[in-house]
Amino acid sequence: MKTYQEHLSQFLGYLTQTKYGQDPKELYDPIDYMMQLGGKRLRPVLCLMGYELFDNRTENALPAALAIEVFHNFTLVHDDIMDNAPLRRGKPTVYQKWNMPVAILVGDLMMIKAVDFLRASQSKQINAMLDVFLTTAREVCEGQQLDMNFEVQENVSIDAYIEMITLKTAVLLGASLKIGALAANASLAQANHLYEFGKNIGIAFQIQDDLLDCFGNHSNTGKQVGGDIAANKKTLLYIELMASVHKDDLQQLLTLREEQNTEVKINETLKLYEKYQIQSFAELQKKHYLDKAMHHLTNLDIQSDALQMLKATALDLMERIA
Amino acid sequence: MKTYQEHLSQFLGYLTQTKYGQDPKELYDPIDYMMQLGGKRLRPVLCLMGYELFDNRTENALPAALAIEVFHNFTLVHDDIMDNAPLRRGKPTVYQKWNMPVAILVGDLMMIKAVDFLRASQSKQINAMLDVFLTTAREVCEGQQLDMNFEVQENVSIDAYIEMITLKTAVLLGASLKIGALAANASLAQANHLYEFGKNIGIAFQIQDDLLDCFGNHSNTGKQVGGDIAANKKTLLYIELMASVHKDDLQQLLTLREEQNTEVKINETLKLYEKYQIQSFAELQKKHYLDKAMHHLTNLDIQSDALQMLKATALDLMERIA
Repeated sequence: MKTYQEHLSQFLGYLTQTKYGQDPKELYDPIDYMMQLGGKRLRPVLCLMGYELFDNRTENALPAALAIEVFHNFTLVHDDIMDNAPLRRGKPTVYQKWNMPVAILVGDLMMIKAVDFLRASQSKQINAMLDVFLTTAREVCEGQQLDMNFEVQENVSIDAYIEMITLKTAVLLGASLKIGALAANASLAQANHLYEFGKNIGIAFQIQDDLLDCFGNHSNTGKQVGGDIAANKKTLLYIELMASVHKDDLQQLLTLREEQNTEVKINETLKLYEKYQIQSFAELQKKHYLDKAMHHLTNLDIQSDALQMLKATALDLMERIA
Repeated sequence: MKTYQEHLSQFLGYLTQTKYGQDPKELYDPIDYMMQLGGKRLRPVLCLMGYELFDNRTENALPAALAIEVFHNFTLVHDDIMDNAPLRRGKPTVYQKWNMPVAILVGDLMMIKAVDFLRASQSKQINAMLDVFLTTAREVCEGQQLDMNFEVQENVSIDAYIEMITLKTAVLLGASLKIGALAANASLAQANHLYEFGKNIGIAFQIQDDLLDCFGNHSNTGKQVGGDIAANKKTLLYIELMASVHKDDLQQLLTLREEQNTEVKINETLKLYEKYQIQSFAELQKKHYLDKAMHHLTNLDIQSDALQMLKATALDLMERIA
């Protein structure tokens, strides 16, 4: 049984020797650049872990793990254009370092290559793997669109928010585990429990991320407290506050949205979070999805060290971003 | 055996009842809009014609024909962003009517849906069809990048130009026929002859297009004579002129590139085309690729009305754009 680090190093070994293409180099150089920017490589590791629950020859899941990581990076290349993001992991984004047309085309090509890589998987269940992959790809696009909609939409419900983060980020974590499991010939029922585990963990991660922005230990993360508040971002916390606030406080909240002094804006909004016990609401939500995730692991009905490792990894990741 | 019009109307019937998705509508409305903009639907018709050479139940090729048309329209949505094009078929482009982030995402989703549609084909050769489709998709991206490179590149060779138009537009015509043939259980050898026919016809079409800009009957097409010259576009004609021009005329040619009076620019450049017999060079090139295309039809070794129809359609299209 492999640890996260061992899965990671197996994946990185494979990634290093991967060739995406050569000509025209204006198209392939940015792919190399993007794929080498680094990161936790959470999705491919989940794919390998999903595989290892049913078969220990994890090298067989490497093409699928690569497909998922290339797909994820395609979405990042295009998202960075849409978000006008200058930096990713401290380095210029593809559209900044090259230009917008190149970044569009590079993303398109990465999406195509991702399907190619997945099809290189030697598995009896390749069709089921492709089904999951393409459904998830569609959902990730839908989630990104919902996220853009919410930016200009006045009222967003908690349910709509959960739907958005589910599609935008959580389903791909579930799909990574499911595709890995299917590659190892797991049954569809087993693969689906893993999918639900990954998806619900993903939702919990995202809620954790929203919580951290306001209540995290920022001496560890180095991030600014209240960045989401400053940016008027519609996080779970903000949506719940809008839904709970008495009409006496509503005007203050709306005025704070326009407040120019960032320190005042953040501190006064945090006071409203405290008054309406938003932190404990979000903590409860997080726990709800975490419990759901663990419930599916229990239903998987496998007893193995690899399963304990998967569970520990999920909880550890949750702690580490805390 | 069906005529072009009959294939077209079968395809349009299928297209009309196709549902791409509903929610979020910000993402699916533009897909409906784009797919209904119209056009000759050349690629899906070629797919149906390729199928009909081997099996007359052309309804079986409709999912593949749809996949190809959706893919083609995905490339148009993204190309229109890259080219800053305000109009397509006289209507606002997706990125103009909505916005750039939506247009990026709509294209991404169309690419994903295209693979989905292709996979819905009921064919024993579905894997070979997917191979052709994904290889062609990659090549079309590469061709678009080469086209963008040429815009800023001083010297482009004839070979490089032919390579660019091959990848950017010709391979998809070849692939449409090949995928249709494979869907009808044609052998790989037969499917490859059709691919080469479509690809070479596509190159000839593009050369014809370059010729028309300078020597076409513009009272028919309504287009401006010399639009490519005015825009300093590196067409086959221009590349050949640059390669042939004596050094006495080179300076004049370079000066004409900067000429502000469009009428003078076009007329003087046309005189150089005449002096260096560029039109007959391009006509010969066109004939070369047309002959190659027909050679592959002969090698296909099929005698059928459907084959005569395919040949006639290709020549007719060539005439009609003339």
